[in-house]
Amino acid sequence: MDIKRLNRKKVIIIGGDGFCGWPTTLHLSRQGYEVVIVDNLSRRNIDNELEVESLTPIKPLGERIKVWQELTGHKIRHININIAEDYEQLLQVLNDEKPGTIIHFAEQRSAPYSMKSPRHKRYTVNNNINGTHNLLCAISESELDIHLVHLGTMGVYGYGTAGVKIPEGYLEVEVITDKGERVEQEILYPTNPGSVYHMTKSQDQLLFQYYNKNDQMRITDLHQGIVWGTNTEETKLDERLINRFDYDGDYGTVLNRFLMQAALDYPITVHGTGGQTRAFIHIQDTVRCIQLAIENPPQKEDRVMIFNQMTETHRIEDLAKMVRELTEGEIAYVQNPRKEAAENELHVKNDLFLSKGLKPTTLNQGLLREVSEVAKRYAHRADLSKIPARSVWTKDQQPGVPEEREAAIEKSRL
Amino acid sequence: MDIKRLNRKKVIIIGGDGFCGWPTTLHLSRQGYEVVIVDNLSRRNIDNELEVESLTPIKPLGERIKVWQELTGHKIRHININIAEDYEQLLQVLNDEKPGTIIHFAEQRSAPYSMKSPRHKRYTVNNNINGTHNLLCAISESELDIHLVHLGTMGVYGYGTAGVKIPEGYLEVEVITDKGERVEQEILYPTNPGSVYHMTKSQDQLLFQYYNKNDQMRITDLHQGIVWGTNTEETKLDERLINRFDYDGDYGTVLNRFLMQAALDYPITVHGTGGQTRAFIHIQDTVRCIQLAIENPPQKEDRVMIFNQMTETHRIEDLAKMVRELTEGEIAYVQNPRKEAAENELHVKNDLFLSKGLKPTTLNQGLLREVSEVAKRYAHRADLSKIPARSVWTKDQQPGVPEEREAAIEKSRL
Ligand SMILES: NC(=O)c1ccc[n+]([C@@H]2O[C@H](COP(=O)([O-])OP(=O)(O)OC[C@H]3O[C@@H](n4cnc5c(N)ncnc54)[C@H](O)[C@@H]3O)[C@@H](O)[C@H]2O)c1
Ligand SMILES: NC(=O)c1ccc[n+]([C@@H]2O[C@H](COP(=O)([O-])OP(=O)(O)OC[C@H]3O[C@@H](n4cnc5c(N)ncnc54)[C@H](O)[C@@H]3O)[C@@H](O)[C@H]2O)c1
Repeated sequence: MDIKRLNRKKVIIIGGDGFCGWPTTLHLSRQGYEVVIVDNLSRRNIDNELEVESLTPIKPLGERIKVWQELTGHKIRHININIAEDYEQLLQVLNDEKPGTIIHFAEQRSAPYSMKSPRHKRYTVNNNINGTHNLLCAISESELDIHLVHLGTMGVYGYGTAGVKIPEGYLEVEVITDKGERVEQEILYPTNPGSVYHMTKSQDQLLFQYYNKNDQMRITDLHQGIVWGTNTEETKLDERLINRFDYDGDYGTVLNRFLMQAALDYPITVHGTGGQTRAFIHIQDTVRCIQLAIENPPQKEDRVMIFNQMTETHRIEDLAKMVRELTEGEIAYVQNPRKEAAENELHVKNDLFLSKGLKPTTLNQGLLREVSEVAKRYAHRADLSKIPARSVWTKDQQPGVPEEREAAIEKSRL
Repeated sequence: MDIKRLNRKKVIIIGGDGFCGWPTTLHLSRQGYEVVIVDNLSRRNIDNELEVESLTPIKPLGERIKVWQELTGHKIRHININIAEDYEQLLQVLNDEKPGTIIHFAEQRSAPYSMKSPRHKRYTVNNNINGTHNLLCAISESELDIHLVHLGTMGVYGYGTAGVKIPEGYLEVEVITDKGERVEQEILYPTNPGSVYHMTKSQDQLLFQYYNKNDQMRITDLHQGIVWGTNTEETKLDERLINRFDYDGDYGTVLNRFLMQAALDYPITVHGTGGQTRAFIHIQDTVRCIQLAIENPPQKEDRVMIFNQMTETHRIEDLAKMVRELTEGEIAYVQNPRKEAAENELHVKNDLFLSKGLKPTTLNQGLLREVSEVAKRYAHRADLSKIPARSVWTKDQQPGVPEEREAAIEKSRL
């Protein structure tokens, strides 16, 4: 069989207009990669649906790309394809571009959004599973030896296994045979997803396992922690390159939300007791990790390579207190709209990225202040009524709204 | 909250026109259940696509239902809905009918069909995952305390774990904590699916686990072995009630195919060495097991209840020899078009059904002869060119066609 030549320095970034995808695009472009973005702009359409905007004034993708080229001379192209639907076009793009790597960010990524209604649950399953499966199918059909890098989430692990440091994808277990012998096995870490969104990420793992086995596909799955921060070296170069900053109850993620709330003089809303521990990574490290993943592809005969893409873990309440110190905000404890353990421990391995040379950027006053300043600069763009988390996991649960605030919001509506 | 009253003796059978669904419909109808079939007749359309028909002359669903009512006085209704697409109608049906139980057979169920082409892979994923998810979503939205009984497959287990009897869904393992302590855990049996079809069944398990956890849904998942036979007590009552008999390379399953091949004087085609061991169940036991599952629902707080729905295991080569004895056929060893282990052991627990009172119908000369006679009776309906398994797992593999036959088929085409 003819080995089709790939363009090793060409990368297709699916979801390259999003919060992680855009800074990754710029970072790789600057590192000398030719980048083609595939994105159907669905995330911007969801902003329309939710009647909310990024706190930062993001520019249309065409303008972003133009500014980047003017500034750096590097060309980026955008192809508008819905990967969950436009299979033939997706295949055509692979055959035309023959990229060495595809980075796949293109999933509906908000847990609360995935729980808003049956329509949102169904959209999330359909978009994420068909999108990811179409991509695998197209790579297989193209017969190109492309390295697929996918963004998964630490959330699939379910924050559950008492006393066991969360491994990178695979868990060593012992099984007792019928004859009473102990046999060691390494299995995909048994997932325990906490929302429809997280469930789709667990299902993705089975898709990857299968196509890797059947088609010897090279796949790297990055189980990412909660990303915080907004700027990277490249997005700072020009205001028109600015990255998304999601602050609303559906897409805003915890640390960024705290910093934004404090900057807006809104109570720092802690869900439940705040005893949940979560894994974090700064957006600057996200883009570095992805470059490391691209540059260290698995061998053809390897199983799916799974990295934990995170640098530190924190209790939510501790983060809230840290932000309070920094900003003199106040904390409000509200009902937890999610169905999850009130308290949990979390210890995570991230040896793989460390071994590839990652120097973690951990939480520090300087960086927190930087994000807080971005939030203040654009505070006038915020719609306060969009801050509370209103999506609930079951009909018996309550949205996470500080009481006085609900009253104030109601009043402002009259 | 108002507890909505369910009709305990009403069952919705999704996929009730299919090979397992139709005899189940008749069996439950005769047992006094009110049965509503939901089926979009996609299986009959696939027959059109593949230009093949059931070896037995099955009647249109409307006629089947009419004959049953004339014969027994029992009424069955049919609603034509594609559950992977028509969500609102599906929800409406649940709200209108308020069934105590839903039995879900409605998935694309052929592994070779799921591997034919990218289109077939994508159809299988889309149909099975969106269909199953829509159903879960609709049950959740209806707020009805419906018991969902789903047909899974033994194939998700991957025929792999050396020396461990395959448990019913959950595996006990020991994990070693960071402090060196051993902790026992029960996990969903780690799947190792061998085709896109089997992969969708593994993904289904995650859907069930999630909705059971989040919505306290009662779910029974029946991991079924390969079904053989064609008639049940009810389908025998009138020729117009006859059940499907799939004999083609995509939908025909192994033991039935051997019996049909022998009846047609076609070589009994064994894929590879025939060293694969598989689990089996007769169609008469399928319908009994399903009744047992309906009548023993899990409690609301239970996890997903998983039964292995099989009665015996056999090596493929042994089955071929048994059929040869019975029919004086000849065996042809052909290339295995599937990517699977050449040989495997398989020991399976089925204690749950035995404990509920199942008296297994195992392979015996009488039953084999009965199937063989059905095959002979309708042999004139067979299209010999449809017998070989032509769907291959990767482009490097070969279809399972006996050589002389390929030549003969070619000749007959000239
Ligand atoms: N942001 C986080 O904190 C975080 C944490 C862990 C994992 N992740 C994962 O990283 C990935 C990227 O996250 P993000 O925060 O950048 O999300 P995002 O929503 O900002 O970006 C996703 C991008 O993909 C595009 N997209 C979605 N569906 C598409 C489709 N069918 N066809 C084409 N384009 C499509 C959207 O338009 C959007 O531009 C996701 O898979 C997410 O699950 C994110
Ligand atoms: N036949 C076997 O040997 C076997 C073995 C193990 C498990 N199973 C499982 O048992 C179930 C039934 O198998 P079968 O052999 O009866 O299959 P089948 O193909 O004969 O029947 C499936 C029925 O579901 C209907 N259907 C499919 N998709 C639908 C949709 N989206 N909306 C509405 N109806 C739809 C089809 O029209 C068909 O009538 C399947 O889930 C299969 O995986 C079967």
